[in-house]
Amino acid sequence: MCGIFGITDHKEAGIFTFLGIQGLQHRGQESAGIAIFDGEKINVKTGMGEVRDVFSLEDVKKLKGKTAIGHVRYSTAGSSSLKNAQPLCATTSKGDLALCHNGNLVNALSLRQKLINEGAILTGNSDSELILHLVARSSSPTMQDAILDALSEVQGAFSLIFLFEDNIMAVRDPNGFRPLCLGKVENSLCFSSETAAIELVKGKVIKELMPGEVVIASKKGYKSINWKPLKKHFFCIFEYVYFARPDSLLYGIPVSSSRIKMGKKLAQECKTKADVVIPVPDSGIFAAMGYAEESGIPLNFGLIRSHYIGRTFIQPLQTVRDYGVRLKLSPISSILKGKRVVLVDDSIVRGTTMRQIVGLLKNAGAKEVHVRISCPPTRFPCYYGIDTPTSEELIAHNKEVDEVCSFLGATSLHYLSLENMQNSVDEEKRWFCTACWDGNYPVLPQDIKQQKLFSLKK
Amino acid sequence: MCGIFGITDHKEAGIFTFLGIQGLQHRGQESAGIAIFDGEKINVKTGMGEVRDVFSLEDVKKLKGKTAIGHVRYSTAGSSSLKNAQPLCATTSKGDLALCHNGNLVNALSLRQKLINEGAILTGNSDSELILHLVARSSSPTMQDAILDALSEVQGAFSLIFLFEDNIMAVRDPNGFRPLCLGKVENSLCFSSETAAIELVKGKVIKELMPGEVVIASKKGYKSINWKPLKKHFFCIFEYVYFARPDSLLYGIPVSSSRIKMGKKLAQECKTKADVVIPVPDSGIFAAMGYAEESGIPLNFGLIRSHYIGRTFIQPLQTVRDYGVRLKLSPISSILKGKRVVLVDDSIVRGTTMRQIVGLLKNAGAKEVHVRISCPPTRFPCYYGIDTPTSEELIAHNKEVDEVCSFLGATSLHYLSLENMQNSVDEEKRWFCTACWDGNYPVLPQDIKQQKLFSLKK
Amino acid sequence: MCGIFGITDHKEAGIFTFLGIQGLQHRGQESAGIAIFDGEKINVKTGMGEVRDVFSLEDVKKLKGKTAIGHVRYSTAGSSSLKNAQPLCATTSKGDLALCHNGNLVNALSLRQKLINEGAILTGNSDSELILHLVARSSSPTMQDAILDALSEVQGAFSLIFLFEDNIMAVRDPNGFRPLCLGKVENSLCFSSETAAIELVKGKVIKELMPGEVVIASKKGYKSINWKPLKKHFFCIFEYVYFARPDSLLYGIPVSSSRIKMGKKLAQECKTKADVVIPVPDSGIFAAMGYAEESGIPLNFGLIRSHYIGRTFIQPLQTVRDYGVRLKLSPISSILKGKRVVLVDDSIVRGTTMRQIVGLLKNAGAKEVHVRISCPPTRFPCYYGIDTPTSEELIAHNKEVDEVCSFLGATSLHYLSLENMQNSVDEEKRWFCTACWDGNYPVLPQDIKQQKLFSLKK
Amino acid sequence: MCGIFGITDHKEAGIFTFLGIQGLQHRGQESAGIAIFDGEKINVKTGMGEVRDVFSLEDVKKLKGKTAIGHVRYSTAGSSSLKNAQPLCATTSKGDLALCHNGNLVNALSLRQKLINEGAILTGNSDSELILHLVARSSSPTMQDAILDALSEVQGAFSLIFLFEDNIMAVRDPNGFRPLCLGKVENSLCFSSETAAIELVKGKVIKELMPGEVVIASKKGYKSINWKPLKKHFFCIFEYVYFARPDSLLYGIPVSSSRIKMGKKLAQECKTKADVVIPVPDSGIFAAMGYAEESGIPLNFGLIRSHYIGRTFIQPLQTVRDYGVRLKLSPISSILKGKRVVLVDDSIVRGTTMRQIVGLLKNAGAKEVHVRISCPPTRFPCYYGIDTPTSEELIAHNKEVDEVCSFLGATSLHYLSLENMQNSVDEEKRWFCTACWDGNYPVLPQDIKQQKLFSLKK
Repeated sequence: MCGIFGITDHKEAGIFTFLGIQGLQHRGQESAGIAIFDGEKINVKTGMGEVRDVFSLEDVKKLKGKTAIGHVRYSTAGSSSLKNAQPLCATTSKGDLALCHNGNLVNALSLRQKLINEGAILTGNSDSELILHLVARSSSPTMQDAILDALSEVQGAFSLIFLFEDNIMAVRDPNGFRPLCLGKVENSLCFSSETAAIELVKGKVIKELMPGEVVIASKKGYKSINWKPLKKHFFCIFEYVYFARPDSLLYGIPVSSSRIKMGKKLAQECKTKADVVIPVPDSGIFAAMGYAEESGIPLNFGLIRSHYIGRTFIQPLQTVRDYGVRLKLSPISSILKGKRVVLVDDSIVRGTTMRQIVGLLKNAGAKEVHVRISCPPTRFPCYYGIDTPTSEELIAHNKEVDEVCSFLGATSLHYLSLENMQNSVDEEKRWFCTACWDGNYPVLPQDIKQQKLFSLKK
Repeated sequence: MCGIFGITDHKEAGIFTFLGIQGLQHRGQESAGIAIFDGEKINVKTGMGEVRDVFSLEDVKKLKGKTAIGHVRYSTAGSSSLKNAQPLCATTSKGDLALCHNGNLVNALSLRQKLINEGAILTGNSDSELILHLVARSSSPTMQDAILDALSEVQGAFSLIFLFEDNIMAVRDPNGFRPLCLGKVENSLCFSSETAAIELVKGKVIKELMPGEVVIASKKGYKSINWKPLKKHFFCIFEYVYFARPDSLLYGIPVSSSRIKMGKKLAQECKTKADVVIPVPDSGIFAAMGYAEESGIPLNFGLIRSHYIGRTFIQPLQTVRDYGVRLKLSPISSILKGKRVVLVDDSIVRGTTMRQIVGLLKNAGAKEVHVRISCPPTRFPCYYGIDTPTSEELIAHNKEVDEVCSFLGATSLHYLSLENMQNSVDEEKRWFCTACWDGNYPVLPQDIKQQKLFSLKK
Repeated sequence: MCGIFGITDHKEAGIFTFLGIQGLQHRGQESAGIAIFDGEKINVKTGMGEVRDVFSLEDVKKLKGKTAIGHVRYSTAGSSSLKNAQPLCATTSKGDLALCHNGNLVNALSLRQKLINEGAILTGNSDSELILHLVARSSSPTMQDAILDALSEVQGAFSLIFLFEDNIMAVRDPNGFRPLCLGKVENSLCFSSETAAIELVKGKVIKELMPGEVVIASKKGYKSINWKPLKKHFFCIFEYVYFARPDSLLYGIPVSSSRIKMGKKLAQECKTKADVVIPVPDSGIFAAMGYAEESGIPLNFGLIRSHYIGRTFIQPLQTVRDYGVRLKLSPISSILKGKRVVLVDDSIVRGTTMRQIVGLLKNAGAKEVHVRISCPPTRFPCYYGIDTPTSEELIAHNKEVDEVCSFLGATSLHYLSLENMQNSVDEEKRWFCTACWDGNYPVLPQDIKQQKLFSLKK
Repeated sequence: MCGIFGITDHKEAGIFTFLGIQGLQHRGQESAGIAIFDGEKINVKTGMGEVRDVFSLEDVKKLKGKTAIGHVRYSTAGSSSLKNAQPLCATTSKGDLALCHNGNLVNALSLRQKLINEGAILTGNSDSELILHLVARSSSPTMQDAILDALSEVQGAFSLIFLFEDNIMAVRDPNGFRPLCLGKVENSLCFSSETAAIELVKGKVIKELMPGEVVIASKKGYKSINWKPLKKHFFCIFEYVYFARPDSLLYGIPVSSSRIKMGKKLAQECKTKADVVIPVPDSGIFAAMGYAEESGIPLNFGLIRSHYIGRTFIQPLQTVRDYGVRLKLSPISSILKGKRVVLVDDSIVRGTTMRQIVGLLKNAGAKEVHVRISCPPTRFPCYYGIDTPTSEELIAHNKEVDEVCSFLGATSLHYLSLENMQNSVDEEKRWFCTACWDGNYPVLPQDIKQQKLFSLKK
């Protein structure tokens, strides 16, 4: 998953982009970067880590220019390295160009092979770089047309913002897998993966881009091109379940409200006698509130999230490598002891983390642990930008719910139904991609080997 | 405020101390350090920033030895610099010595002057360094006696752990201002400011040190010395209100439970008609849960805490310097709009932050904002280790409650009563320092100018 | 100017390449790098500064593989940035490829424009990168043929070494502007700009590559391809005058001997009554020795070279910015006082430095300062790899010798004649490029604007 | 060996001190530092490495104040660590004080023990720190008297400059082991180990301090105190032989002239039939010039000094660890082949380096190698500030000259006689310390164990 932000015609474009990508930090902590047009050329700074690791105060002050785009990255395709950090930049025969990409191309491998065969020199191994090469190779005389040419060759999930001179061109793929919205800050136009980042900089949301829509913004205002006719929406509903900030709106629907509803419906679907509702912080908090309200069972914070140093750090330390989630989550015995607990979280991937959490609660004295998950069993990998493991590693891929429950050591386990998950967001329309749960992939991955590229992080 | 941790006779003393001070990271983010006895001498590594900034994986692996102590620091007296980072070390005629200190001496200025007059060369400007010099100057033949000699000269708040050879000597001042507890990890003895850090490393708490108690631990076990007869407990009740982790126990009382009770008593003291209870995250969460449960008004998370880059970073950026709390806390309109809100937090210091939060809620559509604070008005500075501003800067020092309410722009304001705050912790005994609220200083600061040393951070 | 070094089939290829480019450090201090084939792929490390700045001991140890190439760079075309640091690497349809280049293409601008028009994305702005793209775009099925295809498009000065799998392919342009030699270290083949770097690693020189020669080396030995028929040698005679190490041999002729002969011929051409011969260290030392021996006037070191911090450092320090050469060269009064001095150096570019040196000597008490230069007046810029300023900035471009003398404030000034400079190297053959002095450019720069690219350093 | 520099009452005191210690860089490359009085307090910056490693341009610009002192260090006593980097600073009851020290105390161990017993906390392990503690402990009411008190307790070699407020107090020990001179830059007074550093900043030398002299300088001018009556000069004659810059004057005598004379006397003492005189660069250059002039044998540079990466770097690289001096010095065969060579250097310590050099020359074709050394056999360690190895490691300690010659593999070996070495400096007076050669230590080291502290570097 990644976050993208851009702003045109603002004298503090650099600072606002810096704040904007800070507001999207939850969408990726692996690398960050900003590209800014200084009136003559595009300057770019990227680095590994969170925004605050990459940009010092001096760096932010040096971002001179009035049009800028920024990116935070959580690697999906392409390894974790500075070369893959975005924005990516290039000089083309149509001028300088910078690009930020959220999503994942499904025909990346064949595009890559084609480009290498034609003599292109690729510097990283991300799929986003391919788009840049396609634009550079277009024979269309204007940048705008060259970008549209390039878009005609790519397939999959892509919310894109391009920077050239003092223009930003924003694109959302014809299925609308990933979010992208347009806003206004003072008198300037801006783009953001999520509405919350626009509000962070005291801006107002104008609208979300429609699937297949292209918007070109500059100091002259913006115009919308209906690049590709929308066939069918396939918005990633997992954005509501987990990814997006609770204070964002997606298609006008508050994420927090959806999560609360998911919790309520969980409580309706499976009535449980219990003493306390405990969320897994921070992912399960809103669903837990909904569950508590609907069920009447009191909410309490029996798990505290600690400062956490990361698995890659702990792993080589033999003595504590098996401490696992213990270092990240601390149970409060006084809240848990002797209690029948409803434990609420957003999803289960491999199941190993949840098993440890159930163990923590039991060791802290919980009498029963009823696990409640605010989406259906995750059975299939995502090809559209989420960094999921292969099918084999997904615990629900081959196991029935009762087998998973037994693996977790839980008293009971219930997943929210696919229908109620969708109802929690919108009771009428059904325009979601639900491939993770039902395997119905709206756009088939062209390159079967591509799956190898997926790194296994969660 | 600071956090201290130590462990004896464990082959992974370095790793456990590293984890221990991570578990105390909330008590100080300014500097961190670890001292370890390698069988011959004490090695020390300190640095500015959080534990994870100071220690790389390589650094942790290099911590060879079986007895170690560590420290996280939030400057109280002494400026923010590497020289003041702890553990502090010295070679004395009795051998090598390292020291970690949580608290604040009230006779530091006169001790400093005395030592300089006697020709001591001080390298930092913290009060903790003075203790080291007093030990070095003692004519007692053993380290243990030299430490006891030094203790007889210092006054104020001090929880200390000393490392010399394979011994750790832990001291709690005769009024017990700051917490300190003894635990066991596998077969090794450990010390920690809070119980939660002992549990983090899968240890068991043995007991809290009593005021005036000295405990010496080594591979031979531990022995307790009743160094100074306890006159009267003056434990900092603000540890319950704000500082300590909710999953810690202080004097056997769960911090989370006390906070929940404070919230309940708040609701009892001042009944309010409202639609939703909103905590200021993370400080107001437990009190808000108590308030919601007692009042029957539903809890909701209408304020989201963002990744935050810090005031020192934002201040020089002219354009956004006044964004203030907006960059740290985001309101969720869908939760707040048209609502009568009860806003719960732990305390108000200068009032400027709370005023901004009230403004945020109102702008997001809240109809009424009733501020509820889980302690009485903070009117006096702390001389015992909390980094409070001078009296003049404390909004409640010169203003009545209704004036503060008006300054905040709140619909109403209520502070928990002193009695109920104490009752929330313990209904019978009254052994707390409550100087911040009533000005009754148990140990008078000897040096009036010392106040100058207090930096103004919050 | 740049230095290049490579070695095949040696288990310590990384260490030897590291030492080899150290031995060529005088040819460029701006950036350094090494590419090594690890049996599967090419790994590369580059950085700004001298070799010792770029490679830590750990870095050197990490250079795993048996075939490696390295580079030190002194920017000629292309700005000073990490992107231009070599070796440059690319993945092509024929496999991985790395490249080191010494020299300068004269048709770089038109090649660059052509490549951009064809949609190539260039990451740096050096001319060397263009070669890599030409190789990648070749439709020849083997890497060797693709390289030969690329070579057919480039014009100018180029000594190149390519690394692909466990092969090194070395190329010298058909005019042989820049040196390149083949050697043997233990049982491994190596390439180096200069013989001295081969001797540094205890190797033996096999031969110099001829202009237009291509040599492919691997563990199977080496074979030579007469890529392009040599029309006429145009070896840069300035390598003898200044660039090369005195302990190198070029075309079998010791550089030190040539310089000594230049000094002798200077003494013959212009007899001067003087008391002492003073070299400008280190560039004038060997010519000064020749001058002293021939003239019978004793040599003495009246100028001492100091540790020097560089112009870019001093320039912003208002107070000392005009100290100039004073910080780099210190005169010894006891040697200079009252003396008639013959001051020997290799060349004069802008004249400002030499004017300061003459001033230093006079202030230190020299009665007369006779400047003797071991090459003719430098009147024209180099397009073949030396970083000279534009014609306008060359003091001898518009000024006669007596005007230059007067500008320098010298008692007299004599430049070595073009003929004697050449005779000092080789009395019979005349196969040198002498364009700097007579403007006879063997290969005309195709792109007139290219001159703009030249940075003005000396 | 160390270098010290200071300047009073100059608005660019920081920049000039930065340049001054650059001019003394040859006296120590291990650490560097500057202390400056900003009108209120002393600020200090120190770091490991050369001056240019420690001070960035930004650092130099930040050196605000009008009185400053600086230091470059080559460890003698005390290990190589940042804690030992100078200037050392302390706050005393008389105010802030900073200190730079060149030399070595002979009663350091007993002073250290005494101070620790009295409760002093020492932060490094250099002898210089002890002086600071002695000053801090003095009961004299003024800084000047406190310094004089401290001086009365220390023995050995010490040229010192103290900074307190806008005063610099400079001290030379009663035997005058190490140099120290007073100069004037514009209207400001300055101090420097060597005259060359004063001339580097365009200053004039006023005078050298006499042994036992103390000079206090400020904006009011300077006054001299005859602190201790001079008994007998024991100036380190090795400063003339090797340490000092050739462009410095010591006691008014040019170092370069002394070295040339040493070379001449070498030629007189031992007539040798040879074809060429080759200096070991850079240490043997001036003596070689004298030798060539006196003997009539031509001088030539048959050994070239390369960029060198240091033994600590090479040692762990198994393959090249025995390359030794080969990486530092390159022979020129065309100069050496078939020649009878006179090889001139300043001294032989362990003999291992010289043996390698002789081998290099022979391998390069030299027929005979006559080693000529411009001082007598070094038989005894220095206790006064030179980092020599123990007696056992000095090759001349147990071996006769012919045995050393045989060890070196030289055709012949001759050392300059003690008398002629002294005559080369001054034909009448005999005021030198010659302990390295004859074991006559002017001040006996009080603490026999101190020898252990000497590190073995050369």
